[in-house]
Amino acid sequence: MGKYAASMEDVIAASKRIKGHGHRTPILTNKTINQLTGKKIFFKCENFQKIGAFKFRGGWNAISSLSDEEAKKGVCTHSSGNHAQAVAYAAMKRNIPAYIVMPENAPKVKIQAVEGYNAKITLCKPTLKARRETLEKIAEKTGAYVVHPFNEPKVIAGQGTAALELIEDVGDLDAICAPIGGGGLMSGTCIAAKDMLPNVRLFGAEPKGADDAYRSLKEGKLLPQENPNTICDGLLTSMGENTWNILKDHLEDIITVDDEEVVTAMRLVWERMKIIIEPSCATPLAAVLTPEFKRLENIETIGIILTGGNVDLSKLPF
Amino acid sequence: MGKYAASMEDVIAASKRIKGHGHRTPILTNKTINQLTGKKIFFKCENFQKIGAFKFRGGWNAISSLSDEEAKKGVCTHSSGNHAQAVAYAAMKRNIPAYIVMPENAPKVKIQAVEGYNAKITLCKPTLKARRETLEKIAEKTGAYVVHPFNEPKVIAGQGTAALELIEDVGDLDAICAPIGGGGLMSGTCIAAKDMLPNVRLFGAEPKGADDAYRSLKEGKLLPQENPNTICDGLLTSMGENTWNILKDHLEDIITVDDEEVVTAMRLVWERMKIIIEPSCATPLAAVLTPEFKRLENIETIGIILTGGNVDLSKLPF
Repeated sequence: MGKYAASMEDVIAASKRIKGHGHRTPILTNKTINQLTGKKIFFKCENFQKIGAFKFRGGWNAISSLSDEEAKKGVCTHSSGNHAQAVAYAAMKRNIPAYIVMPENAPKVKIQAVEGYNAKITLCKPTLKARRETLEKIAEKTGAYVVHPFNEPKVIAGQGTAALELIEDVGDLDAICAPIGGGGLMSGTCIAAKDMLPNVRLFGAEPKGADDAYRSLKEGKLLPQENPNTICDGLLTSMGENTWNILKDHLEDIITVDDEEVVTAMRLVWERMKIIIEPSCATPLAAVLTPEFKRLENIETIGIILTGGNVDLSKLPF
Repeated sequence: MGKYAASMEDVIAASKRIKGHGHRTPILTNKTINQLTGKKIFFKCENFQKIGAFKFRGGWNAISSLSDEEAKKGVCTHSSGNHAQAVAYAAMKRNIPAYIVMPENAPKVKIQAVEGYNAKITLCKPTLKARRETLEKIAEKTGAYVVHPFNEPKVIAGQGTAALELIEDVGDLDAICAPIGGGGLMSGTCIAAKDMLPNVRLFGAEPKGADDAYRSLKEGKLLPQENPNTICDGLLTSMGENTWNILKDHLEDIITVDDEEVVTAMRLVWERMKIIIEPSCATPLAAVLTPEFKRLENIETIGIILTGGNVDLSKLPF
């Protein structure tokens, strides 16, 4: 392994594994949003990806990279959201078992989605400790490969393929902005983008209620998430060593936004672009709409990765 | 004028006028929905059209067809919805006045949208009589050209361009299904589709609570809408002579659906395709999901026109 957990070669290899199995998602633009931001924004629409989120990429790359010997015992992970679906889907397609640990308070609709991909679900108490311990036991008992949602190098490389496609399709960009949860997407984006566009400026977007990456970048060391509280249910986790190592060397800045700004940006996309994105997914546009971002000079074209569209329509923030 | 208010030549002429001004909207497919219906459905996504609905096409075609002499006095119409926006938008782009009569109980968001296109709005009592009378007075006073929302031949031809693009992009189709309000979209679709695919089977979709076209087709004569009551706020109007004349000769059948079926279809599109459509827009998919439609033989490929995405997010039916 080089300096980082994933390299551009890993991203290219991931891209080849994903080709023909995932969607090459469209890139959309919107005049009204360009007028509001004073920028030209290219939205990479991963809400149209398989399982409704970019997480497909990392899960698919990790699971299709396993040897037949490794794969036959299956794969496992803990997740309440899109990563669970990504692992379950890729395992189903490879015809190997998937063991998913989910918190017992996970939305029924998400549990059903994972069940729909034939995964074996184990419910546990809704604490990180319970999730980790339950997963450990299952991994030990079954010998299944643990697919970490963001610290796994193959997952980082897989997530980087979204930025690779974005740049292939759009060409030059002044900046790219993506949300940071565990940092898998943002770190993969850094690796791909800096290789393809050495001068591109990279920005993370985080909810103020889950700002571990923001605080870490300011302090210069990896700090954990503490009592996260935000509508962005996909961004509650802390970063890992592998993602932090990449982010600290590549990001120009991290912009934090409050939940109200997230909902405003989310509503703007729904109303103007007529596409469905989940709250976590709205953080980069919310960031680009802040006065703080608008003050930055020499940024005219921006790529934004719209991460996913799995929302519970019964619980909308409008 | 030939047998009908619009011909294929008119649709082709409309297509040339619209080119470069409207979006060539994408055609999307969805595996889950194909599995549910047992068909292969091609969705023509007019929710991504300018002003968020296919109505742009008819409004643009009508207004860009006017001579400079006719145009300079402006255009007018009465509408509480997408047609008002279409006329206002096309007039703004042609730099002529638009006078729009809207019922005083129209949603603020729609009034604001029309104002945003610089139209002069006159509010009136929310009855068809008041709307017609107010419009007549304005037309008399200003000499503005009245753009009827569906009976106007240029509007019918404009709406037909959606089907023209659909067939150009997809090729052969066994059937096409679109909603019927005043019948402008469906009649334009009939003209374009039967010319390009003589064997295509054409189906209208209507809410049971506004089924004037369904009753008219059964009775063989133009019957008016009576006390319409449905969530499909874009389908409340009665047909006109021009649209009825086309529909009665071209439609194989009209399928009616209740509001619950509409909401189920709408939710399916939101959740599975991650795109926003308005209730009126969900009627054709709801129709294709009925046992009645499933019993039809030799229909494997279907084109569905998704008509618009202008919903009030504060008043969702979920």
